[in-house]
Amino acid sequence: MNKVKKEFPCEQARRYLEPGPIVLVTSQYRGERNVMTLGWQTILEFSPALVGLMISAGNYSHQLIKKSRQCVINLPTTDLTDTVVDIGNSSGRDTDKFAAFGLTTSPAQKVAAPLIDQCVAHFECALYDDALVDSYHFFIFEIVRALASDIDNPQTLHYRGNGEFMVAGDIISRRERFRPEMLP
Amino acid sequence: MNKVKKEFPCEQARRYLEPGPIVLVTSQYRGERNVMTLGWQTILEFSPALVGLMISAGNYSHQLIKKSRQCVINLPTTDLTDTVVDIGNSSGRDTDKFAAFGLTTSPAQKVAAPLIDQCVAHFECALYDDALVDSYHFFIFEIVRALASDIDNPQTLHYRGNGEFMVAGDIISRRERFRPEMLP
Repeated sequence: MNKVKKEFPCEQARRYLEPGPIVLVTSQYRGERNVMTLGWQTILEFSPALVGLMISAGNYSHQLIKKSRQCVINLPTTDLTDTVVDIGNSSGRDTDKFAAFGLTTSPAQKVAAPLIDQCVAHFECALYDDALVDSYHFFIFEIVRALASDIDNPQTLHYRGNGEFMVAGDIISRRERFRPEMLP
Repeated sequence: MNKVKKEFPCEQARRYLEPGPIVLVTSQYRGERNVMTLGWQTILEFSPALVGLMISAGNYSHQLIKKSRQCVINLPTTDLTDTVVDIGNSSGRDTDKFAAFGLTTSPAQKVAAPLIDQCVAHFECALYDDALVDSYHFFIFEIVRALASDIDNPQTLHYRGNGEFMVAGDIISRRERFRPEMLP
């Protein structure tokens, strides 16, 4: 499955990340690459498009990301549930997860880490502020390129611990109830 | 509606917050109180139970929270969708939102800000680190008391901009696929 993706303005990344989905973060440093499952992320600013990721130092990806100062946030949907779990339950120290889980990749444009073809959206990220990396393992990234397939309502996974995911996908619109200046 | 709530260990807050729902944050400082709608939050650590909230300085709540160094994170479900929108589209500068939107409150135990009775879970929070408050309006709080009603699968709201919410509620379990040490 290689979904066709289109670029869109980075400041609209909230559309995919603000709902709080599980993401697959890819990294690459001097020829080594890895992918990890991550649930601890939040949008921090529209423009520059900032996102904060808590990447524990116990993860093999932590060092690759810290050294390269880059990553890609890839958005999986429910068809990848088992893969998301398997990635989170293995380590890049002893496993090539891309090969082990049948993930194919495409090159990013602005960073070295790869895009995972099976995901529906990608956010290429450059480290913006490392102030909290040592104290909290919290990386503040600027999204420097965003692209997504034209799936309108992706069914995303939202981890709640204990091996369980909430699934989000149904949409409620309350556009008519917003003050105009609150909407784009 | 006043749901019966039970306390539970703060390090289990992820069960409610990690999926990335919209929350209602209450604050109180010297007799002034307010409530705001917030979507930019992430769990940062299990124990101490840390959560990061990006609370823009444009919000009336920002000053109350900065001065009191406390807040309560309240979790609304889909039955409160209109209220969530209305709270986000008004300001505590000119509106008593509790009265305007029919919200009743109960006292917290460890902080001054109130619990919103109509919500299904509450997290009383004390400021843990203000290092990024001035630069990013990012507050790192420790959850010092957690309580929730016994609703098993709350239907939560996940904002994606443009007046639209994703709804999460259906659960997928993959417990059997996890390494035992990854589960509680």
